[in-house]
Amino acid sequence: MRVFNFAAGPATLPLEVLEEARAELSDWRGSGMSVLEVSHRSKAFLAVAAEAERRLRDLLSVPDNYRVLFLQGGATLQFAAIPLNLAGADSRADYINTGAWSKKAIAEGRRFVGGLAVIADEAASRYTSVPEAAALAVRADAAYLHYTVNETIGGVEFPYVPDSGAVPLVADLSSTLLSRPLEVARFGLIYAGAQKNIGPAGLTVVIVREDLLGRARAGTPAVLDYAAQAAEGSMLNTPPTFAWYMAGLVFAWLERQGGLAAMARVNEAKARLLYRAIDASGFYVNPVARSCRSWMNVPFTLREPELDGSFLAGARAAGLHNLEGHRSVGGMRASLYNAMPLAGVEALVAFMAEFERSHG
Amino acid sequence: MRVFNFAAGPATLPLEVLEEARAELSDWRGSGMSVLEVSHRSKAFLAVAAEAERRLRDLLSVPDNYRVLFLQGGATLQFAAIPLNLAGADSRADYINTGAWSKKAIAEGRRFVGGLAVIADEAASRYTSVPEAAALAVRADAAYLHYTVNETIGGVEFPYVPDSGAVPLVADLSSTLLSRPLEVARFGLIYAGAQKNIGPAGLTVVIVREDLLGRARAGTPAVLDYAAQAAEGSMLNTPPTFAWYMAGLVFAWLERQGGLAAMARVNEAKARLLYRAIDASGFYVNPVARSCRSWMNVPFTLREPELDGSFLAGARAAGLHNLEGHRSVGGMRASLYNAMPLAGVEALVAFMAEFERSHG
Repeated sequence: MRVFNFAAGPATLPLEVLEEARAELSDWRGSGMSVLEVSHRSKAFLAVAAEAERRLRDLLSVPDNYRVLFLQGGATLQFAAIPLNLAGADSRADYINTGAWSKKAIAEGRRFVGGLAVIADEAASRYTSVPEAAALAVRADAAYLHYTVNETIGGVEFPYVPDSGAVPLVADLSSTLLSRPLEVARFGLIYAGAQKNIGPAGLTVVIVREDLLGRARAGTPAVLDYAAQAAEGSMLNTPPTFAWYMAGLVFAWLERQGGLAAMARVNEAKARLLYRAIDASGFYVNPVARSCRSWMNVPFTLREPELDGSFLAGARAAGLHNLEGHRSVGGMRASLYNAMPLAGVEALVAFMAEFERSHG
Repeated sequence: MRVFNFAAGPATLPLEVLEEARAELSDWRGSGMSVLEVSHRSKAFLAVAAEAERRLRDLLSVPDNYRVLFLQGGATLQFAAIPLNLAGADSRADYINTGAWSKKAIAEGRRFVGGLAVIADEAASRYTSVPEAAALAVRADAAYLHYTVNETIGGVEFPYVPDSGAVPLVADLSSTLLSRPLEVARFGLIYAGAQKNIGPAGLTVVIVREDLLGRARAGTPAVLDYAAQAAEGSMLNTPPTFAWYMAGLVFAWLERQGGLAAMARVNEAKARLLYRAIDASGFYVNPVARSCRSWMNVPFTLREPELDGSFLAGARAAGLHNLEGHRSVGGMRASLYNAMPLAGVEALVAFMAEFERSHG
């Protein structure tokens, strides 16, 4: 029996996609081979790779002057690749700090950029908010402005795209890319680990404006050089072929759902349902300012934390899995990525009401 | 119908392993989830990860003072990670050049090590040989000696382990790891991309002696820092969970085959059969010195190259796929990794004889 999996990533995938992959796992399209066994340079795989890119471009309406890269190493490796590609060692780069993932990007960025500055820090709110759009003072000579669009642990999501003027805007979209439409042209570079809304862990999507290519500093590993990867169609080294193939299946599934506008409607409805249940209770608490609550990751606590264990055990018995909060913060977290159906959130909300009745 | 797939990587996998993965792809061990959907930090996945490492350690008899890392980015990213971790920018490092992959390692190494020297270069033989063991003069103050144990394109494999004295020996074993027993204690660090003998593309295994950890230079991306990855159990960032799981299935399959001594017997028999067929003909040619012919990758040409197309088309019609040589050299190449059964090589040799009869 399939359960509802609320894990933050690796995360639930569309069952249809899993079944498609399973059906052809040991004989791909009648080739007598698995897709896992096919050379990345074979005509068949190159078609898979190109088709996945085309679908992603269509879904996000990626402008022609952007390159789409399918890489490895997760957002964490991008935390290094971004300064290596976009900033000299002595240059300046601006960062916004809205929580755990911002902090990781900043800590790694400091190893590569002498003039890194945190131009907005939400520490005072305990990372339950984002800065006012008007309060952002980006330095005109910064190589880029970096921010974390959605904090997977804190459950904070920007409701607006910062205006960085002529300074390229760089965004970690790991947990929110493809959850709703995005105006890619506002950004210099966006990136996302796949293991939330794209596909299996081990794939990282980078979308970068062409004029930002070719600036990598000396000492950048070739694999991390965006221009080199773009020139080789993301095949400077052997790419993670199975994850790329699976991402293509996910993109096709998203098209069948009606694209990102349709996903946004469902995702907003899922989030609204859960936040309303939390706010209406005297039993559950979400600390995030309403204007910037994440649609994708909903952390919450019980007013009586000694009930956490019973809550999680009861949820699991009801088929609601992986609701534990991140190990750094405890409590609960429900991740509501694209592949989580509304029915999963309805079941969660029903369980929460029942648990409150019996323990409140 | 399953074909014989002679691709150099991504490459054929054991059918048993593919069927195991397929059987549980949408419901892993009755969990109601796919293994693709499971958090890398879940108890269930941590057990998979630890089990895979234990099996790999057993297969290779890895000594206790070595750490096994499951990383991303392929051998190509290791070409940068190795100097970043083991050598200062002003230090010396020695390399042996036996062909295409050596050259890539050297070119990338030069970006990070001022004092890089190629202490042996097989250019004079057109990369059809390896240096004499006695001729290697490793500099006593080199941070390491790097060599490519098996050249996947050239089909040259070292029949001995170089003696580097007190200088740590670093070896790219991408296309030969697990094909036969290995005395790991002779090495400071070994590494291999998975997509030959280990599992799917997107996973890279690094085995490093503990005393070499903790020396990464400033400016090493955290993801590439072996000590940081070792401290986090290769989970400093989200690992490629599916590839890691598949590698564990491959390791279990290798145990069922009788381990690496048994694989060596089969692999040697496969290689001997094919080389004998080539050498006995007046029609096929392999240029590599007999003492250092690869068991894993057998390049060969036709004396009449205008027949290449007919040969490849005929082979494909006989169920023998992906025999094209690397795009940089042309001709033919048969990769005979662990998962290629003896029956595949017998079928290839039979086809080659028949083709020679009808075209010779």
